[in-house]
Amino acid sequence: MSEVLPVAVDAMGGDDAPASIVAGAKLAVERFGVPVLLVGRSAEMGDTGGIPVLEASEVIGMDAEPAASVRRMKDSSIVRAAEAVRDGQASSLLSAGNTGAAMAASLLRMGRIKGISRPAIAVPFPNLGSTPTTLLDCGANADCQPEWLVQFAQLGSVYARTRFGIETPRVGVMTIGEEAGKGNQLVKDACGLLETGDWATACGANYVGNLEGRDLMKGVADVIVCDGFTGNIILKSLEGGMEIALGAMRDAMANVTDVPVIAERLDPLLDPVFDELDVNTRGSAILLGTRGVSMIAHGSSTPDAIANAINTANMMVEAGIVANVRAMVEAGN
Amino acid sequence: MSEVLPVAVDAMGGDDAPASIVAGAKLAVERFGVPVLLVGRSAEMGDTGGIPVLEASEVIGMDAEPAASVRRMKDSSIVRAAEAVRDGQASSLLSAGNTGAAMAASLLRMGRIKGISRPAIAVPFPNLGSTPTTLLDCGANADCQPEWLVQFAQLGSVYARTRFGIETPRVGVMTIGEEAGKGNQLVKDACGLLETGDWATACGANYVGNLEGRDLMKGVADVIVCDGFTGNIILKSLEGGMEIALGAMRDAMANVTDVPVIAERLDPLLDPVFDELDVNTRGSAILLGTRGVSMIAHGSSTPDAIANAINTANMMVEAGIVANVRAMVEAGN
Repeated sequence: MSEVLPVAVDAMGGDDAPASIVAGAKLAVERFGVPVLLVGRSAEMGDTGGIPVLEASEVIGMDAEPAASVRRMKDSSIVRAAEAVRDGQASSLLSAGNTGAAMAASLLRMGRIKGISRPAIAVPFPNLGSTPTTLLDCGANADCQPEWLVQFAQLGSVYARTRFGIETPRVGVMTIGEEAGKGNQLVKDACGLLETGDWATACGANYVGNLEGRDLMKGVADVIVCDGFTGNIILKSLEGGMEIALGAMRDAMANVTDVPVIAERLDPLLDPVFDELDVNTRGSAILLGTRGVSMIAHGSSTPDAIANAINTANMMVEAGIVANVRAMVEAGN
Repeated sequence: MSEVLPVAVDAMGGDDAPASIVAGAKLAVERFGVPVLLVGRSAEMGDTGGIPVLEASEVIGMDAEPAASVRRMKDSSIVRAAEAVRDGQASSLLSAGNTGAAMAASLLRMGRIKGISRPAIAVPFPNLGSTPTTLLDCGANADCQPEWLVQFAQLGSVYARTRFGIETPRVGVMTIGEEAGKGNQLVKDACGLLETGDWATACGANYVGNLEGRDLMKGVADVIVCDGFTGNIILKSLEGGMEIALGAMRDAMANVTDVPVIAERLDPLLDPVFDELDVNTRGSAILLGTRGVSMIAHGSSTPDAIANAINTANMMVEAGIVANVRAMVEAGN
């Protein structure tokens, strides 16, 4: 019986790190029984509740230039965490810090899976009452080649099956018109390749063609591909918009202070809706295509969100996402 | 004293045309005293309440190929409406039909303002409690040159000043990182031009640099520029996301049927929030850079939304948006 390896958690990355990260790690251990390895400056972590620490003296700032920092700061928490996965000390990596640095550390220390052109960031977007729609790339590759979008479609299909149990994922391409041939040049070129269908056979997907922004949270597809510039802007626009809508709603309700029954009756109904629509908390982005599981959490993640992301990282390891991607690449060759 | 020309309204364009369009036109006349010229098949319009009709026998479908349809269907409602503006029978144009066809008809019949490389679609995004942020291009140009983004910045500045009275608009560029140099190749190239600042002097703008998706509804800029592919996807993603969030909220509240006071007390607080966040209704996109005011409404526009858009079209004519764009182009030469 193989020992369960811990999730290596970058304790120093995040808006309120290390406090919120350590708190999230403790929650993950308590709630899900997932073993954790905290990586960073133990002196700043406070009581870890017995969670082991891998010392790392440097911290890559949220705004630091990613690739250069990863190359230079060899004793940084994110680099040491990625090395822990590479060296078999940890099963997977989670960081709520500098996204670019987490990506660069994963790429440089874990390496790409053979046959993968460009790893991509996949983010599940909530669909009320059904499985999420996974959008990728959400920021790993600002400029893309048409062929990469086809591979993103395959990576997303493997992910949708591994994480959400969707046997034959419906895959679409994000563009600006429903009819074939609508979009920018990249999408037009990618559509030419996507429509051949060979890629879909290789990964067991069902290509559903063009989708638009308004289709995103309506459950019409399980996977949607786009370049990383577009995906990142969609993600952040929706995060921002939802936050504003839900916040305005909460404010309006908080103004009715003389009818306490309102909060009492509405909160149990609205809290699950607010929670399900919160892209921040539920997101737990994953970098697909590297030789190890690398999860990226939002900088403003609460301890709850961190705990959920740690649990997801562990689930992705147990479900064999890396092996599944490898098998998909080999099936296509 | 010059006669007030009517707004030419494409009566046949929209999901529920001509009924909802005619209803909206009547509302505009009643509520705002704006004269309207309905364009289309009078036999299908029912009682127009005395609003004059310009006959047009053809209708360009919502999914028809825009440019080809405009060239071929010379007696279509959208083409006749654009000609009415060109010929001085109407002050401006409004269509809730095929967006591409409305754009093509405006471009081909009204023509571009001299010195404008590419007209762009500008959409005001709501900021709760303050003036909107105008995003452009929201779909006129799927692939853009860096120079066009600079001109979009100027067009947006003139629009923010003309429509919202913002004397020195803050203008940013939509990208995927706060630091200069972050983005795709188009944004990087455009930033090099935007940072020179000459364009800003020519149009009285204040360049605020890189912005991200999450900044959109937070009031941090008055104008944000991007390519039309990105802008259209942002617009539709937020429309879709907001609709889902607000709908889920309404559903949850509707479930509390045994406490009637909830609706009674909450509706007056929530309705303005819901209304203000409804990008569909408040949007009223405008095509900037043509030699006439051309407004584009959402296909699912309610009569209220149509009436508001007609009123906005008339306001833009009275405020001299076309002359203001012309003056801006001349000041830059």
